[in-house]
Amino acid sequence: MFISFEGTEGVGKTTLIRKIYDHFLSQGKEVVLTREPGGTPMAEQIRSLLLSVNHEEQMSHDTELLLMYAARAQHLQQVILPALQADKIVLCDRFTDASFAYQCAGRGLSEAKLQVLNDSFVSRMPDCTFWLDAPIELGMDRARARGALDRFEQEKVAFFEKVRAGYETLSQRQPERIKRLDASQLPDQVFAQALSYL
Amino acid sequence: MFISFEGTEGVGKTTLIRKIYDHFLSQGKEVVLTREPGGTPMAEQIRSLLLSVNHEEQMSHDTELLLMYAARAQHLQQVILPALQADKIVLCDRFTDASFAYQCAGRGLSEAKLQVLNDSFVSRMPDCTFWLDAPIELGMDRARARGALDRFEQEKVAFFEKVRAGYETLSQRQPERIKRLDASQLPDQVFAQALSYL
Repeated sequence: MFISFEGTEGVGKTTLIRKIYDHFLSQGKEVVLTREPGGTPMAEQIRSLLLSVNHEEQMSHDTELLLMYAARAQHLQQVILPALQADKIVLCDRFTDASFAYQCAGRGLSEAKLQVLNDSFVSRMPDCTFWLDAPIELGMDRARARGALDRFEQEKVAFFEKVRAGYETLSQRQPERIKRLDASQLPDQVFAQALSYL
Repeated sequence: MFISFEGTEGVGKTTLIRKIYDHFLSQGKEVVLTREPGGTPMAEQIRSLLLSVNHEEQMSHDTELLLMYAARAQHLQQVILPALQADKIVLCDRFTDASFAYQCAGRGLSEAKLQVLNDSFVSRMPDCTFWLDAPIELGMDRARARGALDRFEQEKVAFFEKVRAGYETLSQRQPERIKRLDASQLPDQVFAQALSYL
């Protein structure tokens, strides 16, 4: 089983993933906890490029999208596909839906570009995706409280509103796969919502 | 005018590009000399990832291809397109043909993957491409003499024979754009061949 977790900054993905990880572990299951962009040493190097705020130049939107898929291709081949083949449960913090929400809905890149990348380079989609939805300001407060902001976290409210709308679009298109969780609730309540779907 | 230079390791691209650069400069032209992967600070960081021999894991072929196009997208937007718009001559050490030769012909990736990346992320192709062709062993000797070999240069003869065959295929498909130069000749003779086309 391949489960991804999506949402804007500070909505509590890490807390929920940890609870679900412990839940499966207590059932004696083998679970792999991973994240995007990243998840392998090489993909984490690509993540550093993507999140760094110290670039001498503006990263083009195309470059951002292609780096995301370069990291994803490595992550799929090295981590996700081998784990699924070994019958492990994979919990992944963000996957292709994040590229739609951030690069298409957020940045304004054409969905056609994303589609060809998905068709050509993503051989396995999640079986279930939890979209943690909370008011943008709430999440941004939480993200700020964590410390220095990365290149995405430094974006403005208007950007994250577009990202949120992107997730909403996707969840309406694929209601079977993508489950919206009310992430303004307390962590245990968010976990209970997720469990009700699992 | 956008001119790219292609070929396997050690065929003398750098020497030829420098001669053509000086040639245009002496005519009072504005010329931009650049290279792929790389050509901007960010794209050069991607180049470092691509060429490094110090990775803890094998880079997947998909990742290699996508990193090439991530760097290319940045290079196009930051360097190549602005220079062409300002009526400068752009001399580029490698471009999309290298992705065909190395990643498709060399690594065995499907040409369809390359095609969607070209269609979606490359808005401008070179007007003229010089393919410097020389026996593989000759080029490898030259590359070895330059010092430590990068991740591509460390490949074996059989790989470069496939890359060379890839360039041959492309030059047969697009004889108007891609001109084969006999790079086993002396540098001034190779330069004279190139001049005869310019």
